[in-house]
Amino acid sequence: MRPPHTAKRGLLIADVGEQGLLVRLRARIKPPPPSVIIGIGDDAAALMPARGALEILTTDSLVEGVHFRREWTAAQAIGHKALAVNLSDLAAMGATPRAALLSLALPSNLPVEDFDALIDGFVTLAERTGAPLVGGNLTRSPGPLVVDVTVIGEAAARKILRRSGARPGDELYLTGDVGGAAAGLELLARGAHRESLDAAAKACIERHERPAPRLKVGAAVARARAASAAMDLSDGLADAATQIGSASGVGIVLEAASIPISPGAVAQAAAQGRDSVQAALAGGEDYELLFTVRPRRRSAFLNAARRAGRGLAITCIGRVTAEPGVWVRREGRQEAVPPPSFGHF
Amino acid sequence: MRPPHTAKRGLLIADVGEQGLLVRLRARIKPPPPSVIIGIGDDAAALMPARGALEILTTDSLVEGVHFRREWTAAQAIGHKALAVNLSDLAAMGATPRAALLSLALPSNLPVEDFDALIDGFVTLAERTGAPLVGGNLTRSPGPLVVDVTVIGEAAARKILRRSGARPGDELYLTGDVGGAAAGLELLARGAHRESLDAAAKACIERHERPAPRLKVGAAVARARAASAAMDLSDGLADAATQIGSASGVGIVLEAASIPISPGAVAQAAAQGRDSVQAALAGGEDYELLFTVRPRRRSAFLNAARRAGRGLAITCIGRVTAEPGVWVRREGRQEAVPPPSFGHF
Repeated sequence: MRPPHTAKRGLLIADVGEQGLLVRLRARIKPPPPSVIIGIGDDAAALMPARGALEILTTDSLVEGVHFRREWTAAQAIGHKALAVNLSDLAAMGATPRAALLSLALPSNLPVEDFDALIDGFVTLAERTGAPLVGGNLTRSPGPLVVDVTVIGEAAARKILRRSGARPGDELYLTGDVGGAAAGLELLARGAHRESLDAAAKACIERHERPAPRLKVGAAVARARAASAAMDLSDGLADAATQIGSASGVGIVLEAASIPISPGAVAQAAAQGRDSVQAALAGGEDYELLFTVRPRRRSAFLNAARRAGRGLAITCIGRVTAEPGVWVRREGRQEAVPPPSFGHF
Repeated sequence: MRPPHTAKRGLLIADVGEQGLLVRLRARIKPPPPSVIIGIGDDAAALMPARGALEILTTDSLVEGVHFRREWTAAQAIGHKALAVNLSDLAAMGATPRAALLSLALPSNLPVEDFDALIDGFVTLAERTGAPLVGGNLTRSPGPLVVDVTVIGEAAARKILRRSGARPGDELYLTGDVGGAAAGLELLARGAHRESLDAAAKACIERHERPAPRLKVGAAVARARAASAAMDLSDGLADAATQIGSASGVGIVLEAASIPISPGAVAQAAAQGRDSVQAALAGGEDYELLFTVRPRRRSAFLNAARRAGRGLAITCIGRVTAEPGVWVRREGRQEAVPPPSFGHF
């Protein structure tokens, strides 16, 4: 006979049903702050508006088999990441989170403990970032686990960061480093044993699974009105540079030698005889922020970003040019970066 | 050789990719109203807040194989319904729509014309109801088509309709009629040929596929402060009565003879020798509104609801009691309605 805790581990969401899941979810969340007039449990949520600020809204989803695999990634990390990628969009606007909605399509064979862990990963990040879970939706999925998240935030109208404000002569800045998330995904895909990895490789997996939205840096730079444009790196550095260039009607020149690449990604590229700069340009899901900054606002930008970043590297990696396109300068040569292809279809 | 338009009909979303889909989507939407400061195309959308009103937020999804089948339902109707079910939640709060977000997980084999039709169904309803599409997300699905929608609306803090305000002695009112959507779904499941159906049966399919959110009635009743509680009928009349009763700490007695049942649902139940009242209680997805009203507010309620409803029936179907539970009175007898079971897991 199996001991009770083993039996409980075997519970699937089909066994407890929607009401059972809602009870578990509600047990995990704290009472919301006073700005939440109606939270979970009515037809919709109601929030007090932020006085004098714009409402910032974004939605993004993680789909099993496209963005993650349940065999590779713990449910806790899936819940964290689904919220983090949305918060990263707020960070890129210079917005501060106010609330989050979670819509889950759940395969019937999902263990209840995975549901609990997913909610825990979500709610832990939600509480830490001031984005209380105020509503959502649970339904069955006949296929993959789908985690759809919407976040609402606030930003002052005149301080909001857009993609379209870059001008020739602006400098290009990056938070943190890049390439780590893609290297981490590759390690998971290869079936690497986490225990046997070194710290740099483990950090890559951590980056892939639990990206940190750069909310404080985004908000501080917006407040200081120190950047002319901003975007977060969901589909890689080359893509972000292309998007800012296209939205602003300018070009971007990246300095290969200046791009900070995660040590684990450098090691992985070296071991495979690949070019780590190319890998860093193409690798997605680092969720760092890319800013363009007028040279006369450089000090204001660096002060705001470095104070808010608390040790996070803030690096100048290139500049904005009049000629459209994205270019990489390396050892005196300048090469065009082909427009990135989107891998999601 | 196939003529060009036939070749085009064969295009799948995998052929045009994310950028191609975005181009098609943007071509379909009109410039947003001035309250939309940033629409589709940046990291997030930005809206002017509604002065003096609460922000109302809700999210709901339609999952292929759970809520619809592509073989049965046109893509246009899927787009309509995904937005309608969310707007219905706003209606139940007495809120007015302000904007919508659309997150799609798309199977690679989805025809581009189905994508276009889905967007068209969504955007047509969005434009008609003042809920412009301001953002969203497109990703691939390795399984079902998943349509996840978030809407934001506004409602005055003191006028908002909640589930929890019902008191013993209140009267219970319903908009329109019930049972039609479930009867329509059954017709589709049976493979009924639409052309061979009578008008009442066709209306049931229409109700299942293209529910009409009762936004004007909800907003008018809220504005008049004429109802003590409200909810929309997504999971059926018995479920809505249970939810209002539970949230308010009261019971509900329904008068069987007063419940307006869609003529097509009555005919279908009669043909099958089933009880049409039971079918109407259990049948979901009618998206009518259920209100509780203090007797002294009856005139104010009926005036507001009927004026806004423009011919929509507003019917008293029961009353609120102190004793908890949901009951149906029929031919002098009163029977308990068992708590509805949720079919989504």
